[in-house]
Amino acid sequence: MKIYLAGPEVFLPNAVEMGAAKKALCAHYGFEGLYPLDSELDAGQLDDGAEDPRQLAFAISYGNEGLIQQADVIIANLTPFRGVSADVGTVYELGLARGLGKQLLAYSNDPRPFADRTMALYGAAESLFGRDEQQPLRDHDGLSVEDFGLHDNLMIEGGIRLAAGRFMIRNVADGERYTDLTAFEELLRWLADAPR
Amino acid sequence: MKIYLAGPEVFLPNAVEMGAAKKALCAHYGFEGLYPLDSELDAGQLDDGAEDPRQLAFAISYGNEGLIQQADVIIANLTPFRGVSADVGTVYELGLARGLGKQLLAYSNDPRPFADRTMALYGAAESLFGRDEQQPLRDHDGLSVEDFGLHDNLMIEGGIRLAAGRFMIRNVADGERYTDLTAFEELLRWLADAPR
Repeated sequence: MKIYLAGPEVFLPNAVEMGAAKKALCAHYGFEGLYPLDSELDAGQLDDGAEDPRQLAFAISYGNEGLIQQADVIIANLTPFRGVSADVGTVYELGLARGLGKQLLAYSNDPRPFADRTMALYGAAESLFGRDEQQPLRDHDGLSVEDFGLHDNLMIEGGIRLAAGRFMIRNVADGERYTDLTAFEELLRWLADAPR
Repeated sequence: MKIYLAGPEVFLPNAVEMGAAKKALCAHYGFEGLYPLDSELDAGQLDDGAEDPRQLAFAISYGNEGLIQQADVIIANLTPFRGVSADVGTVYELGLARGLGKQLLAYSNDPRPFADRTMALYGAAESLFGRDEQQPLRDHDGLSVEDFGLHDNLMIEGGIRLAAGRFMIRNVADGERYTDLTAFEELLRWLADAPR
């Protein structure tokens, strides 16, 4: 069983080591992990010296979509990235996997609900808009804030649910949000124990 | 031909009017627009009085995925939303549409490249990391910043390209970023003129 390892780890200074650690955990539970940088490295060799950097980006995209097509399962790291929500690259990949009928597993290392995170970063300076049962929650621009008690935009957790997938939330120390693999390993253990 | 109208308009105070305007433009060019709030309103009627607000969120997600399955084309508004990147709900829907083999069209009303927007919001306070040919661009946390000259994370524009879609970027006044429909209409005109 092949698992595509989606997440913002690819932006860490130790991105390659993080991929190796995730793949080793996959192997420990009897799975093969496919890591985005696998195709990136190939693409880098392929396009070395290309004039237009976009060509390299498109080669990476092509490689990653190929890995997702090969995979049976995606495990997406949905820990908030540079702001309120998950990394958009990871979210695109989750949607793609949903459209392709893959099994969807995901985790986040930040337990705060979406509405709380959004209001903390983008809430109104004056509490013109509080949590009024009659009025939707709004940010400082007057844009409504989803307030369903979910972890992120409803399409994300909704899609995982529609795919009969699993979403695991953990609280880890701030400095370990992108590196802690406890929730990731719990999903692998769950997958290994699941009947199939 | 049915077009799913993905975008953060649904969070505007005049979300319903924005949807009506987009659907009217679709009709003008001979298409049927499907707007996320169409299913949300149904779901709201369905789940009125539900105890758990997550049930309403999941009903909306189910409705929207159904609209995307019905659609032939998605037009995604990828204008940056609350931060550096596009709205994650819209990005999930774009990925889903890609996986389902739909035609992908998208636009943004903010012309700045991803790297510029990211460094403006998350760049290092001291320019420890500049644009050095030998070193990847990094944010204030040391996380690398994609610097390919693209508009957002490479999976997004890469996916549109792999689907032989079209991505249109326009510059509009700050106050009209979420409401200007010029790029949206240009995509409709392009679609109406495309051979099929």
